[in-house]
Amino acid sequence: MSEIDVRLAELGLTLPEPSAPVAAYVPVVVAGGIAYVSGQIPFVDGELFKGRLGDNVSLEEGVTAAQACGVMILAQLKAALGSLDKVERIVKLGVFVNSTAAFTDQPKVANGASELMVAVFGEAGKHARSAVSAPALPLGVAVEVDAIVALRAD
Amino acid sequence: MSEIDVRLAELGLTLPEPSAPVAAYVPVVVAGGIAYVSGQIPFVDGELFKGRLGDNVSLEEGVTAAQACGVMILAQLKAALGSLDKVERIVKLGVFVNSTAAFTDQPKVANGASELMVAVFGEAGKHARSAVSAPALPLGVAVEVDAIVALRAD
Amino acid sequence: MSEIDVRLAELGLTLPEPSAPVAAYVPVVVAGGIAYVSGQIPFVDGELFKGRLGDNVSLEEGVTAAQACGVMILAQLKAALGSLDKVERIVKLGVFVNSTAAFTDQPKVANGASELMVAVFGEAGKHARSAVSAPALPLGVAVEVDAIVALRAD
Repeated sequence: MSEIDVRLAELGLTLPEPSAPVAAYVPVVVAGGIAYVSGQIPFVDGELFKGRLGDNVSLEEGVTAAQACGVMILAQLKAALGSLDKVERIVKLGVFVNSTAAFTDQPKVANGASELMVAVFGEAGKHARSAVSAPALPLGVAVEVDAIVALRAD
Repeated sequence: MSEIDVRLAELGLTLPEPSAPVAAYVPVVVAGGIAYVSGQIPFVDGELFKGRLGDNVSLEEGVTAAQACGVMILAQLKAALGSLDKVERIVKLGVFVNSTAAFTDQPKVANGASELMVAVFGEAGKHARSAVSAPALPLGVAVEVDAIVALRAD
Repeated sequence: MSEIDVRLAELGLTLPEPSAPVAAYVPVVVAGGIAYVSGQIPFVDGELFKGRLGDNVSLEEGVTAAQACGVMILAQLKAALGSLDKVERIVKLGVFVNSTAAFTDQPKVANGASELMVAVFGEAGKHARSAVSAPALPLGVAVEVDAIVALRAD
């Protein structure tokens, strides 16, 4: 097992089968030593997690959904790179929260994905981030997260 | 004619005059071998395509609008680079759909831009993507798309 | 004083203490000669500037809020890099405007940040940009802006 696989096991995390893109694009493109990961949507217990923060999704559920997006980012990276040990740095996460206009806890929701990255990669998991709301997301999901990831040179 | 110009002609696509930025920025910046293309808005039959998915814009019209954003991305790249043959890879598209809160077909709309890139560039057109809704877009347009594009080294 | 510090002084701009991230991430990550700056929120007269364009925030106030986000981007870059003279080019700004569905002046709001970059860096401040609305932003702020910045090689 690779170093990061060991860390995932210690955290009790099992990477899911990476989901196929919903449409005409690919999950990961590598250019100039950077992996660009398509926006990932949350699968919780094998089901798409749908709904809206501030309405029918609680803050705690939103955090879980963001973490599930992060887990799918890891699954996509592992499928594209062969091993997560090739990750040098999680550079940036873009977090979109399906919410009402009254919702203001986007940062707490996004932490579900952010804290996952730090738990898995340590210092290399500390990233820049944007977190904003969207009035609607693909298939009605509660959260979508994309990523920019720097890869080791070798 | 360049290779990509031939492909555009085969597809029956004519690039429009690249639109001037709506404000104080530039259409394309190149850094580190990557071209960053500003968010492009859709011109259909020479007119801005305005409206909202789930309200007064149909799914089919949304797809057309997303394709028009993609065509404008190509026009901006050609103006900035001199030739689209300098494109090594379409790396990432960011798609923002002006929609109601009930709309969930962002991926289908975004395919208007994504399928264009694959039609024009083949394998090099396969990109990572995020597609989300926005409650409003500049000048009331239906779709906005930005792009990250890797360039050939020579 | 560095060249850019002189320019800031000429413009009458004082960089604030860079704000701590609202959550589990870092303000700036550098990878491959590019600095990725987390989404910054606006502090005006030391207070978070909250509200929604098209509702309780005027266009003029929105411009001021976007400029304040830009000032915080500069403060974060200076803290991370040591000096703003290391900036080679402002490559891309991502502007999210907290607005009603009827609002269509996202570009004018975003100019608050864009014109700041050109005032401070001149030609090197001319950037690509996306500007869209969000139905809600962290802590209820009116604008959020993130940035991609190319750094000098030395």
